[in-house]
Amino acid sequence: MATQGQVITCKAAVAWEPNKPLTVEDVQVAPPQAGEVRIQVLYTALCHTDAYTWGGKDPEGLFPCILGHEAAGIVESVGEGVTEVQPGDHVIPCYQAECRECKFCKSGKTNLCGKVRSATGVGVMLSDRKSRFSVNGKPIYHFMGTSTFSQYTVVHDVSVAKIDPIAPLDKVCLLGCGVSTGLGAVWNTAKVEPGSIVAVFGLGTVGLAVAEGAKTAGASRIIGIDIDSKKFDIAKNFGVTEFINPNEHDKPIQQVIVDLTDGGVDYSFECIGNVSVMRAALECCHKGWGTSVIVGVAASGQEISTRPFQLVTGRVWKGTAFGGFKSRSQVPWLVDKYLKKVKEIKVDEYVTHTLTLSEINKAFDLLHEGLKRQPGANAQEINIS
Amino acid sequence: MATQGQVITCKAAVAWEPNKPLTVEDVQVAPPQAGEVRIQVLYTALCHTDAYTWGGKDPEGLFPCILGHEAAGIVESVGEGVTEVQPGDHVIPCYQAECRECKFCKSGKTNLCGKVRSATGVGVMLSDRKSRFSVNGKPIYHFMGTSTFSQYTVVHDVSVAKIDPIAPLDKVCLLGCGVSTGLGAVWNTAKVEPGSIVAVFGLGTVGLAVAEGAKTAGASRIIGIDIDSKKFDIAKNFGVTEFINPNEHDKPIQQVIVDLTDGGVDYSFECIGNVSVMRAALECCHKGWGTSVIVGVAASGQEISTRPFQLVTGRVWKGTAFGGFKSRSQVPWLVDKYLKKVKEIKVDEYVTHTLTLSEINKAFDLLHEGLKRQPGANAQEINIS
Repeated sequence: MATQGQVITCKAAVAWEPNKPLTVEDVQVAPPQAGEVRIQVLYTALCHTDAYTWGGKDPEGLFPCILGHEAAGIVESVGEGVTEVQPGDHVIPCYQAECRECKFCKSGKTNLCGKVRSATGVGVMLSDRKSRFSVNGKPIYHFMGTSTFSQYTVVHDVSVAKIDPIAPLDKVCLLGCGVSTGLGAVWNTAKVEPGSIVAVFGLGTVGLAVAEGAKTAGASRIIGIDIDSKKFDIAKNFGVTEFINPNEHDKPIQQVIVDLTDGGVDYSFECIGNVSVMRAALECCHKGWGTSVIVGVAASGQEISTRPFQLVTGRVWKGTAFGGFKSRSQVPWLVDKYLKKVKEIKVDEYVTHTLTLSEINKAFDLLHEGLKRQPGANAQEINIS
Repeated sequence: MATQGQVITCKAAVAWEPNKPLTVEDVQVAPPQAGEVRIQVLYTALCHTDAYTWGGKDPEGLFPCILGHEAAGIVESVGEGVTEVQPGDHVIPCYQAECRECKFCKSGKTNLCGKVRSATGVGVMLSDRKSRFSVNGKPIYHFMGTSTFSQYTVVHDVSVAKIDPIAPLDKVCLLGCGVSTGLGAVWNTAKVEPGSIVAVFGLGTVGLAVAEGAKTAGASRIIGIDIDSKKFDIAKNFGVTEFINPNEHDKPIQQVIVDLTDGGVDYSFECIGNVSVMRAALECCHKGWGTSVIVGVAASGQEISTRPFQLVTGRVWKGTAFGGFKSRSQVPWLVDKYLKKVKEIKVDEYVTHTLTLSEINKAFDLLHEGLKRQPGANAQEINIS
């Protein structure tokens, strides 16, 4: 390609400081160095984690930066030594890397990867600990190793999942975070068995994906819990069989659920990021075996607590990141499940709005409104191209 | 037997009120009713849980009562419908029942049993919700469904493990609680694999049994943590390979352990009952897979806490009761492991003192002293006969 080895100037939404509207700028994107891949981002979605960092709630958040971590695109060029993808490949950039060589990847026990974390955690690339983004010579930090609110981004090769080129990129971009996280929390982290009773706290994208995952795993009852009762209608399509609005009960929600389920649920999932709800999710689990999985991300500094007796009597407290999926190996598998004639997983159904890059601040507004009142407010998908 | 169907008058140590010395009394023990077994207790050990209730720290503790839950004896008589044991059988009464019929027993997921809990939790027998113990007509509550500080006790048949009659009862009584709990925490709850790095917080009987369980499971490093450095010498015999005294470090103990183990341990066990230590035990676990098991019993009302990020990044928080062992099925198996020519588990080595029933208050003193300063203070075994 003509751009290979060259700095590309393109449009990107830059977050200059917390809580200030993003501005779409002409950004210079340097060529990929050894072990790096430059991707033309075509579609991205907006996730709560972007809004969380943008809102200044992440103490490790660095500004100015280019947010975004749930996207799909096409490889534009690759740096030295990159063998697994080449220009033209359709890819999903993954905030969770998979190097297949580190202690984590080789453990067989986790999808976390240690290779590039020290760089992605501070907004730079590993090789020279610098950013590939700049505006008029001023460096702009990377975000989560992905920075997908840009027409071009540079990522580490261990963070690139190559997918089937027939997949519609405007849909499968959602497999870069929320949908995969919810499905994986059920399939990989909790390992829900047929016949299980499941509780899902929070019916946003992740919670709906948990419900879908539980349904495909054969759960007998899927109880959705949300303070917005209007979400139940949408949630039914994702497998939720019963709905509870905690605001309609005087008793603590964990007690309501225990009473409804002859002692508690087999599995519960917290998909909000609220530490009080995390406690309720644990405590609504059945004595002896109930397992609660924390999926939501809590505000910085907040803590979970419970009486140790809850664990001594057999409940298990776990968490999940990217649903336990190994990104490079399993995102392509998820895409394939979506592509089957009889789709094995939903994706299209999560998209509520489609916007352009210039409308990105509206996407943040829609997300925040959805959190407040909108039934089934889910993914705001943004056409970057 | 001549005593069958009769009230037996025998010696028992009665706890009339919290924190007051026990008094050895002539106690009337009623015959077993349907589904009950009367046992001549020959040996009992003293466990922290006895001392905890005696000390008035258990809000559900009822007085007057007969404490004791770690014992061995011989069946004196059985009530109607009891088929699995008969007079003369050597048995270990178990505070954790196993009915093989309830939702818990049939789940295949837990050793907890729901059948008699509603009665044993309030110090009575299930059939008539009354006590079988009295002193001059005044009822004395049962404790943990076992009440072994008595020459005779009545228990539910689902709480009786029949063991090989060649087993020395003065030793295998320890398999009624502490030793089994420690071994099972490793084998059943954590499922430690060969090569694992293990941390054990608290080197009393349970902690030493955890170390032994980890050694037989093939752990490569077993790190013992205790504020009494003198315990290390004894702990080595149980498999502890390294020792840390938190008082000798300025950094939080979890950080000390993470630094020593290239990121944390694979499994940790809290064997004290201290909620701050429970947090440290979780947080010294390796990101991605480290599992922490709460074995100790915390004081009433106390809570554990941590940042949810600890779980989201792959650590797992669990607990165990009686080490996950199914009591009636597996206590006999543990006894058999102890009886093998080359003993597969230690028992004798945990006994530090042997006393008579009349010296029972001294046993409490020794236990409390041991908690304060005595190296390797473990089981105070009491000859009841």
